[in-house]
Amino acid sequence: MPFHGFIREEDGWERVGGDALLSTPYLEVERVMVRTPTRSEPIPWTVVYRKAAVVVVPLTKDGRFAMVRQERVPVRASLWEFPAGQIDQAGAHGADVIRAAGLRELREESGLELGPGGDLVCLGHFFPSAGFTDEHSHLLLARPVVKSAGGSSPDAMEAITECGFFTAAELRAMVASGEVRDANSLSAFARLCARGIL
Amino acid sequence: MPFHGFIREEDGWERVGGDALLSTPYLEVERVMVRTPTRSEPIPWTVVYRKAAVVVVPLTKDGRFAMVRQERVPVRASLWEFPAGQIDQAGAHGADVIRAAGLRELREESGLELGPGGDLVCLGHFFPSAGFTDEHSHLLLARPVVKSAGGSSPDAMEAITECGFFTAAELRAMVASGEVRDANSLSAFARLCARGIL
Repeated sequence: MPFHGFIREEDGWERVGGDALLSTPYLEVERVMVRTPTRSEPIPWTVVYRKAAVVVVPLTKDGRFAMVRQERVPVRASLWEFPAGQIDQAGAHGADVIRAAGLRELREESGLELGPGGDLVCLGHFFPSAGFTDEHSHLLLARPVVKSAGGSSPDAMEAITECGFFTAAELRAMVASGEVRDANSLSAFARLCARGIL
Repeated sequence: MPFHGFIREEDGWERVGGDALLSTPYLEVERVMVRTPTRSEPIPWTVVYRKAAVVVVPLTKDGRFAMVRQERVPVRASLWEFPAGQIDQAGAHGADVIRAAGLRELREESGLELGPGGDLVCLGHFFPSAGFTDEHSHLLLARPVVKSAGGSSPDAMEAITECGFFTAAELRAMVASGEVRDANSLSAFARLCARGIL
């Protein structure tokens, strides 16, 4: 614990102790004592440790964004999302590991792959819920994407029921209406807008 | 468990059992068995239950967005974010409860309040990490905001070190560069862009 080397002690942060509260294959929970840059005394915090993740925005040559519709057990809803998944390797993740994980999730969840002359553009990372978990997700734009010969091969535990292709205007309408409502897709959309790609 | 009534059993979702793994004042963890719309057999899932939250985008009369800089223990970083906080009431949350929580967090974290003739615009909700937690956050736009006579009154456990005011162009640049990197602020930014407000 933690699963990765992304969250480090630097610039005034120091872990001075902690008690493990729970350990499962999916997450670990710790009551940790941490010294922060602005506090003289360490403070306690309950932290959920999770693997890092990668989110891929698949864009076709004709300007359509691919999304998958996935049943999400914790929120009991079926959501339209960009393909995403966890990075299984421990330790710090270099660009190669992040790219490989992104291409794997793209293929497994949507049956798409990077087309000839294609490029993976890094859109940075984000923290899904920085108040309680160290989880962080890397955002990638894959363009152009094409159908993979092998098709999709979803994880047996996942329930992806559809793959859809949406124009920029359709995607924008789905974000505006609240139909797109997972942080992965919204954060990717924010970066695409801010960078003038969308 | 869960803390709120937002995630309900409907349209083919059914909780058929579960084991509590951990209960703390901040989160609860359960290994739950759930029937989903597309599966014939229930599947197990590890779910972290959290209170719902509210995020407020404060916009001044002269078009500046207010953000607070906050030390976030789980990710050991100090982030520029829109004011946000949890909704303490249990049960389903109507618009009044969400608005009251938003105005409270706005005042406590930034020392701002809704100005004369001001309005709170609902920007929908989002799920920070739908793969493992039921946490959901309501997004509000508060405009115009003005300095509150009482100033800010941050929670003793929080470390908010600054409040800053940014033009739309500055906010856009902070999102593009990755300086803004929490899902609350990115998801709010996405909804503002998609609705043509930003």
